[in-house]
Amino acid sequence: MKDKKIGFVGLGRMGGNMARCLNDKGYNVAAVFDINREVTTNLAQDVDATACDSLAAVTAGTDIILTIVTNDAAMDSIYFGEDNLLQGAAGKIFINCATLTPAIHAKIDEAATAAGAASLEACMASSIPQARNGELYLMVGGSEPVFESVKPMLDDLSVDLHFVGPAGKASEVKALVNMIMNINTAALAEGLGIGQALGLDLDMLLKVLGQTGARSRVLETDGEDMVARDHECYFSAEHAAKDSGIALKLAEDSGIPAPLAKATFEQYTKMTELGLGDLDKSGIAELTFKGRAI
Amino acid sequence: MKDKKIGFVGLGRMGGNMARCLNDKGYNVAAVFDINREVTTNLAQDVDATACDSLAAVTAGTDIILTIVTNDAAMDSIYFGEDNLLQGAAGKIFINCATLTPAIHAKIDEAATAAGAASLEACMASSIPQARNGELYLMVGGSEPVFESVKPMLDDLSVDLHFVGPAGKASEVKALVNMIMNINTAALAEGLGIGQALGLDLDMLLKVLGQTGARSRVLETDGEDMVARDHECYFSAEHAAKDSGIALKLAEDSGIPAPLAKATFEQYTKMTELGLGDLDKSGIAELTFKGRAI
Repeated sequence: MKDKKIGFVGLGRMGGNMARCLNDKGYNVAAVFDINREVTTNLAQDVDATACDSLAAVTAGTDIILTIVTNDAAMDSIYFGEDNLLQGAAGKIFINCATLTPAIHAKIDEAATAAGAASLEACMASSIPQARNGELYLMVGGSEPVFESVKPMLDDLSVDLHFVGPAGKASEVKALVNMIMNINTAALAEGLGIGQALGLDLDMLLKVLGQTGARSRVLETDGEDMVARDHECYFSAEHAAKDSGIALKLAEDSGIPAPLAKATFEQYTKMTELGLGDLDKSGIAELTFKGRAI
Repeated sequence: MKDKKIGFVGLGRMGGNMARCLNDKGYNVAAVFDINREVTTNLAQDVDATACDSLAAVTAGTDIILTIVTNDAAMDSIYFGEDNLLQGAAGKIFINCATLTPAIHAKIDEAATAAGAASLEACMASSIPQARNGELYLMVGGSEPVFESVKPMLDDLSVDLHFVGPAGKASEVKALVNMIMNINTAALAEGLGIGQALGLDLDMLLKVLGQTGARSRVLETDGEDMVARDHECYFSAEHAAKDSGIALKLAEDSGIPAPLAKATFEQYTKMTELGLGDLDKSGIAELTFKGRAI
């Protein structure tokens, strides 16, 4: 794999660190692009790549292109805008890393195939340090032979790598993972907020929660932060609202009642409406503790 | 402690097994009572105790009385009915083990004090095997000196013993624990139900959930059961509805918004209305999988 030229589009904290990780591991990161020109030139210097000034140039200069953009609209523009990745794309492999709707992944898969290229969705359930260290949790959807052809590189980016099924399926799994995580987070915020209002010792309450059927991963990551109002962002409330919204749409389209997903979507949407969308998901406790946003 | 005479009122699966546990450990279980006479005589034989035919007889024949009843109404009747535990109760210690409302514990605490007795609430976050083996998770509320006076016996019943605060506080903690547990359970049922409707491999989905931010204790205990429809009862849906309702009332009285607790209460209430209240709490998946109750 290390003879292939690799391109990166979308050089935010995830994309930039994934590029640095592959560069450290001896891959040839050949071309990079971000709408922020300064970010592009900085990363290009760091990994000795070409700082491209068009998407078409990334495709032209590489064999495998990883995209890491924030939402469906950005994804649509890099594939279907005037300057786009599909120009001259025959034989190239695109790997799209972001939690988007299953529909956009399916649409890109179809367009890439029509252009003689291949595409994979690679959904990440990890944060920045994991991107930098090649320790991502990756769920991949698309064609299995294409997946096998880039598996060594994906292995170098991840500690856990799951092939999930056709294009769109990885986004479905990711949306459900985040839906449940967000609900568990919102539940914890309600419990701690009520506990505080009742005058309970919250350190004791956190300890008891961790020893009983209420235990969860988000209790470990977000419990103390909720009490201390430490909402430094690892996974933003706005992102939580987006992912819960995707899952809720899947539920509605499938005819499955999901009242908790709906209540959680509404809470995270309320946070963004209150201007709290940049807080970490733990910031939902701002809605459930007396004397904060309520 | 082993020189004290111990009484048990409410000899269901929890109470009966706690009595057997203390008997095995050399305590003097002297008097037992249940509204079911056959249960009373069977247990009395097993632990060599008097099968009492009145509550007053339990109080008269013992120093420490453990009560394990199912709801506030039963609790009210054993303390305030015509035949009740408070007759001749001066100097006795009552330990009330059940998840009831904080209000009833506070009421009993007051009445016991007026009768020259003492009472503790001892909320359990465990099930039948833990009761039998002295491995309960116990949270105790009431007077701390009274707690200290019976601590050796409570230690013999438990692996984790927490003194939480005045009468009513342990029920509050317990209600919040179960509220969060129930929400996490309902969340899991939604995620798995949507996943099934989308045609995802549910074994894969369970595995991914367990490796990500969606991980929870109820995923471990209830995830496979939800898929397999194995709802053998450890903690009933009806019980879940009751506890979520207690927590929701605490939230309302405190002015804390708790939309997820409300949605979960409504789901478990719906289960009981559909005649599914005797299923384990995992049975909430019957409401979220296509082709089941929906």
